[in-house]
Amino acid sequence: MNSRPFKLDALMASHQYGHALPREFYTSQDIYNYDIAQVWNRNWLWAGHVSQIPNSGDYFLFDYGPESIIIVRDREGEVRAHLNVCRHRGSRVCTEQSGNSRVLVCPYHAWTYELSGKLRAGHNMGEHFDPSKFGLFPVQVSVFKGLIFVCADANTPSLDPVLSQLSPLVEPYGFDDLKVAHTASFPVPANWKLAVENYLECYHCGPAHKEYSRSHSLKSPQEMAGLVEPLNARAIEVGLTPDELALVGEAAPTPFTSGYYRRYPLYQGYKTGSKSGEALAPLLGTLNGFDGGATDFDIGPLNWFLIYSDHMVGYRFVPRGLQETDIQVVWLVRADAEEGQDYDKEDLTWLWHVTSLDDERIIRHNQSGVNSQYFQPGPLGEMETSIQDFYDFYFAMISPEPEQRMAGHG
Amino acid sequence: MNSRPFKLDALMASHQYGHALPREFYTSQDIYNYDIAQVWNRNWLWAGHVSQIPNSGDYFLFDYGPESIIIVRDREGEVRAHLNVCRHRGSRVCTEQSGNSRVLVCPYHAWTYELSGKLRAGHNMGEHFDPSKFGLFPVQVSVFKGLIFVCADANTPSLDPVLSQLSPLVEPYGFDDLKVAHTASFPVPANWKLAVENYLECYHCGPAHKEYSRSHSLKSPQEMAGLVEPLNARAIEVGLTPDELALVGEAAPTPFTSGYYRRYPLYQGYKTGSKSGEALAPLLGTLNGFDGGATDFDIGPLNWFLIYSDHMVGYRFVPRGLQETDIQVVWLVRADAEEGQDYDKEDLTWLWHVTSLDDERIIRHNQSGVNSQYFQPGPLGEMETSIQDFYDFYFAMISPEPEQRMAGHG
Amino acid sequence: MNSRPFKLDALMASHQYGHALPREFYTSQDIYNYDIAQVWNRNWLWAGHVSQIPNSGDYFLFDYGPESIIIVRDREGEVRAHLNVCRHRGSRVCTEQSGNSRVLVCPYHAWTYELSGKLRAGHNMGEHFDPSKFGLFPVQVSVFKGLIFVCADANTPSLDPVLSQLSPLVEPYGFDDLKVAHTASFPVPANWKLAVENYLECYHCGPAHKEYSRSHSLKSPQEMAGLVEPLNARAIEVGLTPDELALVGEAAPTPFTSGYYRRYPLYQGYKTGSKSGEALAPLLGTLNGFDGGATDFDIGPLNWFLIYSDHMVGYRFVPRGLQETDIQVVWLVRADAEEGQDYDKEDLTWLWHVTSLDDERIIRHNQSGVNSQYFQPGPLGEMETSIQDFYDFYFAMISPEPEQRMAGHG
Repeated sequence: MNSRPFKLDALMASHQYGHALPREFYTSQDIYNYDIAQVWNRNWLWAGHVSQIPNSGDYFLFDYGPESIIIVRDREGEVRAHLNVCRHRGSRVCTEQSGNSRVLVCPYHAWTYELSGKLRAGHNMGEHFDPSKFGLFPVQVSVFKGLIFVCADANTPSLDPVLSQLSPLVEPYGFDDLKVAHTASFPVPANWKLAVENYLECYHCGPAHKEYSRSHSLKSPQEMAGLVEPLNARAIEVGLTPDELALVGEAAPTPFTSGYYRRYPLYQGYKTGSKSGEALAPLLGTLNGFDGGATDFDIGPLNWFLIYSDHMVGYRFVPRGLQETDIQVVWLVRADAEEGQDYDKEDLTWLWHVTSLDDERIIRHNQSGVNSQYFQPGPLGEMETSIQDFYDFYFAMISPEPEQRMAGHG
Repeated sequence: MNSRPFKLDALMASHQYGHALPREFYTSQDIYNYDIAQVWNRNWLWAGHVSQIPNSGDYFLFDYGPESIIIVRDREGEVRAHLNVCRHRGSRVCTEQSGNSRVLVCPYHAWTYELSGKLRAGHNMGEHFDPSKFGLFPVQVSVFKGLIFVCADANTPSLDPVLSQLSPLVEPYGFDDLKVAHTASFPVPANWKLAVENYLECYHCGPAHKEYSRSHSLKSPQEMAGLVEPLNARAIEVGLTPDELALVGEAAPTPFTSGYYRRYPLYQGYKTGSKSGEALAPLLGTLNGFDGGATDFDIGPLNWFLIYSDHMVGYRFVPRGLQETDIQVVWLVRADAEEGQDYDKEDLTWLWHVTSLDDERIIRHNQSGVNSQYFQPGPLGEMETSIQDFYDFYFAMISPEPEQRMAGHG
Repeated sequence: MNSRPFKLDALMASHQYGHALPREFYTSQDIYNYDIAQVWNRNWLWAGHVSQIPNSGDYFLFDYGPESIIIVRDREGEVRAHLNVCRHRGSRVCTEQSGNSRVLVCPYHAWTYELSGKLRAGHNMGEHFDPSKFGLFPVQVSVFKGLIFVCADANTPSLDPVLSQLSPLVEPYGFDDLKVAHTASFPVPANWKLAVENYLECYHCGPAHKEYSRSHSLKSPQEMAGLVEPLNARAIEVGLTPDELALVGEAAPTPFTSGYYRRYPLYQGYKTGSKSGEALAPLLGTLNGFDGGATDFDIGPLNWFLIYSDHMVGYRFVPRGLQETDIQVVWLVRADAEEGQDYDKEDLTWLWHVTSLDDERIIRHNQSGVNSQYFQPGPLGEMETSIQDFYDFYFAMISPEPEQRMAGHG
């Protein structure tokens, strides 16, 4: 089912460096299944924030493709993650998106798992049954300043080396002290890779994102260049660093463990990503003012964040099927900010709501054209080099690596 | 289209006896197509009851997968069955689920078939056309005490040897003298085999079926054991036999012709499968009282019945697509019982309505988890041995049998 | 993706001449994809009428399968056609079904194409980028008396030799001077070939089309024979020719360039295809009266027209997916006819509206039966010989033709 598609090597060989991918990467069910196995199950995925599960037994699910992961705070207060698949006949164990439970009980035959994933003695399973062999499949967890990352594959290397380098840069934002203010999901009838590619370049920002382009200079490298120095000065003033960190491509410790941090200027008059230019919420962490910047912050190749001075936006592009993807957007603010008083949800979410609607339309039309039998991958432009970086990562993931692939569960 | 999937032998070999089936059996379109050809087209299927077609020309359709079968009473009063596929260019001939017609006329070009399936002379077909070669494909019919079974394949052995053994056991229920009181269909997004497996074990009854478990002892082998002897005594008293018959597995004449009969105890205070414990309808057949039992009664590997003292429930799990199945439930009562007077439809259907809704949910979550690339078939418990029996039957059906497969229509 | 299905030769060989096609031709996704490549992308398709794009910059889209074609009037007033696929990363360039634009701007990154398809200098594409290599893929255009035909493949031969023969026969209808009065689309869950076959024979007209059969003699070759001579006399009187032209099968210059013209009688009392028999709109072209006839007029193997004395109806069967087809019907009247005054839209469209609804039902039931694993292609009747002609054309299209297939875009 998720074996290596037999034409994959030829397809990879047919890709012209610096061009879009051949059509089949966006239209083949076999390649989609393989993407889940090789890319999604083997990478660190941002699942949520510790504030979503403050107490022991609190849990929520993070689903992608055919997979579902339970993220739960155990009795010792640790965040744990398990595959949401009963070891008996495969039922989902948790069927609500979030909740609190002392144990995890499969709704089918009441197989009961500790929050640690350990199976309690199975009833009516005979004397030779050894419950210790049937715990929930473990999922790796990495909590970085409150942000929860999970990885289904046991062999994926730790994020720690990258996180330790990124840590001082994001320290002032106080990630530990955030809460989720709003979550939105925009389903788009397109392959997940087209959604990722859309996020990775701002070549389309000018033509396609009127609202974003009014406030963010990223869409114009020329204009941005002139604004960087004054921004850096202001950043230092409010308590941020002007340093950048690009642990990507060759600089990444492994393809699985890339990282990126860069603050870039908003246009004059914009304190944050708001319609009016004015503040949207209380300042994050230890910041003492608005520098008029926004931070691109990535952890691993599939998790993207935008950090303003007063809120953070997380972006995920979650595969649901070959040409079904959810654009998921999560807005986070200070934990002590109160809705209606300290922030207005409509105002807070306005920019990335309208921008995501633009992107849904764009990505949909992109998939439609890519489905044409006449589609030919064209050349990437100067503002699209990060797409080739993504292809490099993607091709590394789907290349045969016998040792690595033979490991894992089972 | 329905040729043998080339990985099937390897998949069958990978199945561990006493465990659930490997994932592909529930996720492969090729295997689903092959299931229709090998399992559904070659087995006896319960289509309905003779009371649905009392008069010559009365017909109804029974559909599964891509197939549709016409069950019709012919001019001589016999029940006949034909494939609902015009021999001209393949249109459905009957397009209503039931009706009455003197002949079967294809709506496309008016090719007209006798109720016997024989084609009347085709108009505008030229002088060399021989209508005798273009009758509707015949479907085997077996009527057992009013219950109509059909089988598309001409080579499937007769049910008679099994029916003759089952006949004396069910004689008192008066199957001939029933009518359909209600039919319900519960669509579930799962492979048909997961729905069958759900029906085959009562390991899940305790955790998942609160209402059923209150009245039926099957969910607890220990409790049931203590109730069997008194039930047997009462069964004899009301005119039933306490004998059991298990023509399954090795004891079945062929894999196609299994049969099963066993009465088991309801809990004290329950005369039948009702909410209150009280009677739901007039006593069936020649029964002279309520013994407080329920009968599991199966004919062939795909047809299941539950017989209470005052009504019968038929269960089918009809494939519609790879992960689309209809749980079909049919309630039957004495033919002379009048709705509103002798029985209340809401009360009559309550138990298996709520229980089917439970099962829909359970089976859906089962398929969802089985779709995970991490799913591993776990061990079956002591109350799930009948699932392995089903796998034995299923594997017999999908094993290569050259002689048998070369026969059939065409 | 659209490579030759490896079982195709065996399937073609298994077809029995004069019978329906084997099931796989209507149920295989691979064959459907190949149909798009070999049949739809390589044939002339009727896209519309010049009156839909009177001015420079006016455009409309014609979509089929995964393809979308832009038909646009350029600055010189010529009708041009391009594939609606951006040469950058494949987005649709035009996303509205029709409009007016001075240039064609891709909504993703604003790549801008002249109406001629030429790419203007790409912005931010680097100094080595040569825009002359990235014009929109051209589509062949042939305008015949105002009717616009397009063909995606560059190697398909011109329609001209056929059109020049057909031209004098249709001259009196004044195609140049038409306008689209109404368009309707009837989606049917069936393969496109079943929809075409339905159109190609009138064997089903008697049984299935009550309204059509009341007025059109085509459904009865015997009755029609007696009506032809008087019709021919009247046709000459009103300014039409009684000549027929059948550039089909062996008589067609190539399989791509067939043509057909024949006028046949309506029953007495019918001036046109109306419910009442009375006129529906002003007489077409130079006609000076109603002759009581209707013309079957075909250009190429996929475009069908019916011409009455006062209006014309165009028929297309547009593939949307393996078993998804749109029956598209276009009604045309004199350009100077005014709705509400010179014609009533309800009356005008009545006949082919009710007839298309009949056909939707018929074709749906046909596909349902063809999906049966028991379906066997039956013999075609005396009134269905044009279906075998269609199979001859179809098989020619999907046969291997190495030279031709190696050409084309890319």
